[in-house]
This record gives sequence, structure tokens and C-alpha cells, in this order.
Amino acid sequence: MSTTSPLPEVDVAVCQVALAVGDPDGNLARGLAAAEDAARRGARIVVLPELLRSGYVFVSAQEAEDLAEPADGPTAAAFTDLARRYDLVVAVGFAELDADRSLRNSALLLDGSGIRTVYRKAHLWDGEKDVFVPGDELPEVVATPWGRLALAVCYDLGFVEWMRLIGLAGADLVCAPTNWPGPPRGEGRPMEVVHVQAAASANRMFVAACDRTGAERGVTWVGGSAVVGPDGRPFVEAPAGAGEHVLLARCRLGLAREKSTSARNGVHADRRPELYAGLLTR
Amino acid sequence: MSTTSPLPEVDVAVCQVALAVGDPDGNLARGLAAAEDAARRGARIVVLPELLRSGYVFVSAQEAEDLAEPADGPTAAAFTDLARRYDLVVAVGFAELDADRSLRNSALLLDGSGIRTVYRKAHLWDGEKDVFVPGDELPEVVATPWGRLALAVCYDLGFVEWMRLIGLAGADLVCAPTNWPGPPRGEGRPMEVVHVQAAASANRMFVAACDRTGAERGVTWVGGSAVVGPDGRPFVEAPAGAGEHVLLARCRLGLAREKSTSARNGVHADRRPELYAGLLTR
Repeated sequence: MSTTSPLPEVDVAVCQVALAVGDPDGNLARGLAAAEDAARRGARIVVLPELLRSGYVFVSAQEAEDLAEPADGPTAAAFTDLARRYDLVVAVGFAELDADRSLRNSALLLDGSGIRTVYRKAHLWDGEKDVFVPGDELPEVVATPWGRLALAVCYDLGFVEWMRLIGLAGADLVCAPTNWPGPPRGEGRPMEVVHVQAAASANRMFVAACDRTGAERGVTWVGGSAVVGPDGRPFVEAPAGAGEHVLLARCRLGLAREKSTSARNGVHADRRPELYAGLLTR
Repeated sequence: MSTTSPLPEVDVAVCQVALAVGDPDGNLARGLAAAEDAARRGARIVVLPELLRSGYVFVSAQEAEDLAEPADGPTAAAFTDLARRYDLVVAVGFAELDADRSLRNSALLLDGSGIRTVYRKAHLWDGEKDVFVPGDELPEVVATPWGRLALAVCYDLGFVEWMRLIGLAGADLVCAPTNWPGPPRGEGRPMEVVHVQAAASANRMFVAACDRTGAERGVTWVGGSAVVGPDGRPFVEAPAGAGEHVLLARCRLGLAREKSTSARNGVHADRRPELYAGLLTR
């Protein structure tokens, strides 16, 4: 434990569930049941997949809109109630119909007091581009009793600039609802998890990525849920073919405050921003 | 093979050798022997470790200076001769005493015609800060018959901004001499290789990282040499405890010209530089 960060340990859960587009009540119930299972096992931070209630594989923007909800809709209401009962912080993805009637691929961070922040996915994958308007704000960093939390959604994790910015903003733990489409996993760790490892290690922060499982309209999912520590090592990760799976990892998020990697090195201190200026923004 | 990039296949070698600080002749001979072994086995691009001739664990800046050489010194002369005989492109690290008498942790890219480019490590590790002046130029991208090559050195690989910039500059293959200090490897892939995987995948480019082995003044090395493809998967990687090891990987570097990851996505096209502006350069 870092002497500068006497934050308590906390069990972080990722709830890898199977979902079905067009069954919002069933999806929400499945997510709530998995989160309650995690809470009963002691988790206090619970991460659920991207687009939990709506499902993912929309046939049209209209279908997505029909399944969308405002930030303070049924997903927020149900998980806030659960969070209040179990003293949780919950991260969950949802299809947002925002105040301008734009559709967003969003995520909520909430606790028993209600919504703490809403984040809108900034990097859209494939057919999402037909449905959603990308966000253009960095996720907020939210203080909790266990450390500072931020959200990211799925494909965002592959953008090293975005993860670096979240790290520089002071996140101890990035809660990342995902839907990683993919064929059945081959040998070794999925590349999606390798990106999570590198993002965690490059910024000495924790990342909890919650994927989904099952099939939806012919699309299958990697099922690569994992909680990765600031050294880039997974504490827990879903094995191939695990199906529905609730994974818990005991984390001391304060360890993310220690950015040093040697007496003379730090992952942020050793950056050379003067060399990056004007180049990365082209 | 990408229809837009009819570049031929090439065998890329990484020559993981043991070195000893203060034995420049022995170190150079060891590197040359390993490179010649690789060439005889068919390699045409050969990568050697960081600071090959000098060794790494200097007791003082004076010792480093005594072991340093100009860019056109003995390392360049010996490898240019080898490159001419075997039609090679060679990447090799060396301790550079530059025209201003600054010490640099540098790398050469050369072929039978001589030096193609010199790159000076921009991110210095630990005690290197007492010895070397960091470089402040992005590596050049050099055209070869097999594709476009760029250099990076060791700790540079952990800076996602730097690897992104090299990718955006059009490198098909990053040749990375390294000296990864570390305790004996534990379970699984070393984190250094995970960073190489993520850098390769995030930019859809090849990365050939050549580490060293053995011990030097009590410092041991990860021995994590690997050639990684644009999907982030290692073609070859040194197993734990491999010791000296010459690894070859057949690569079609033109595949790095294909940055798409779906019909609608590309690793560079999907960046949101307007969102990164002003943030990553702080």
C-alpha cells in the first residue's frame, strides 16, 4: 500500500452476461441479478457490459431508438436502487436518447445517491456509426471512497491517446463496459485484453473491462472480461468459453497513485509532451 | 497480401546475444556472428540489441564515453561490411559520441550502402539519465525493398504517443534494439512484450524487438526478443530462459499498409485528433 494513498481495498466485479437485443426487461433483469450476485459476494464496484438493456446488434437506427432511454431512465433507476441496497458503485452501458434526441452509446457511473456521471463513447465501432452520435468529451473522473473512477466504452480502449488522457486526468480505475464482437477465442489471451493490459501498465492504473457472452443475431463475443492491475497483470480474467461469469478482484486502487517504475522513472513523468506537440493532434 | 502493397516477403531476425560492458571487441564480434548466422539462414532484416558494442551497465559517464563511438564508428563499419556481403538491412544500438561531444543512446539503420539513418533514444531509463542526452527527434522512416522501416529504442516502446507517431509516419516495421533489465521471467509473456503487441496492433504495423541475455554487473535481462505482426500476435518470441537465441520470422511488411480493422474502421482513421488536441501535449 502506498503511504500517500491510504485508500481501503475493494472488491471490483465484472459481470459477463448474455443479452438479447429487443428484450430490454430480460436484459436488465439479467444484469441486475449478476450485479446482486457480485454484491452478495462482497463486491462494492460492479461493472456491466456495454448497451446492457438494449442489446447491441440493431437492424436499424429506428430499432436502436426504440430501445434507447434517457440517462435517468430504467437502467439508472434499477441500478441506483441496487446500489443503495448494497452500497455499490455501478458502471453500466446503455443506449442513450439524449436531450437533443441524439442516440448515444453511453455509460453510467452511479451509486446509491444516483447518477455520478454519464459518458458518451467517443470512438464508434463499425455499424454503430449508422446509429450513434459519438461523444466528444473525455470521461469525468469521479471520487469514491475507494479511489477515483472513470468510464470508457469498448473500442475506446484501443485508442492509446484516450487511455493516456484518462490516466493523466487521475483515474485510479477505468470501468469499461464492452461488447467485443469476435469469433471463438483462439490460443492465448484475446488482443482486446492485451490492449487493456498495455493501457493499464502504460498509465499505472486499474482497468476493469466487462464483456458479454452468448450470441446475438449471429454475432458472437470474445467473452474477455478482466480486471487488470497497474502493472498490467490481470487479477482475474474470464477463461475461453466461460459463458456467463461474475469475476471479483480485490484491488487497492490507491496503488494507482504511484506512477513510478524505478527510482528515476515514472510512466507520466517520463513523457516528452514537447515532442508530441502538434504531431498527435494532426 | 494486400493488393495495394505488392511488397515481397522477408525474413526478419532478432539476435538475442549476451554482452559484457567494457568488452567492445568481444561484444561486436558476438553481434556480428549472430547477425551472420541469421543472414545464412535467410534473414534480410536483422535487429540487434541496444548498446551492442559498449554494453549497458556503466559505472560512470566517463566509462560510457570511453566506450562510445561516432555514428560512423566501428559498429557502423563492421555491420555495413556484413550488410554488403549478405544484402542486409541491419538495426543496431550503440553508444554515440555525437559531433557536439554529447553522449547519446542511439541506434543505426544501415545497409550495404552504409548508414541510412541514426536515431537517438528519446525516453531514457533510470541511470541512463546520468549518462546520455535524450534525443528529441522522431525516428525517420526509411524505404527499403521490403517496406518502410523505423527505429525505436527500448523504453521508447512504452510511450504510446511515440509509437503512435511512428505509426502515423508510415513505418511498416519498427526495429527496436532493447536491453530490458529485469528479474527472471515469471509466468506468461513479459509485460515488455505486451507493450510491443499493443503498439503493433494499435497501429497495424510490425515490431521487431531485440533484447539481450546473460548478466552484466548484477543486472539480468528479460530475454524477451520477439517479432510481432500488425494484428499484435508474435510470429516468434524467445522462450523464458532461452539465453542466446537468433529468431527468424517471415513477414510481408506490406500488410502494414492495411490499417482497416473492419469495413468501417481503421486504427488511424478512427482517431479523434480534435479531441486530443491540447490535452496530450500538456
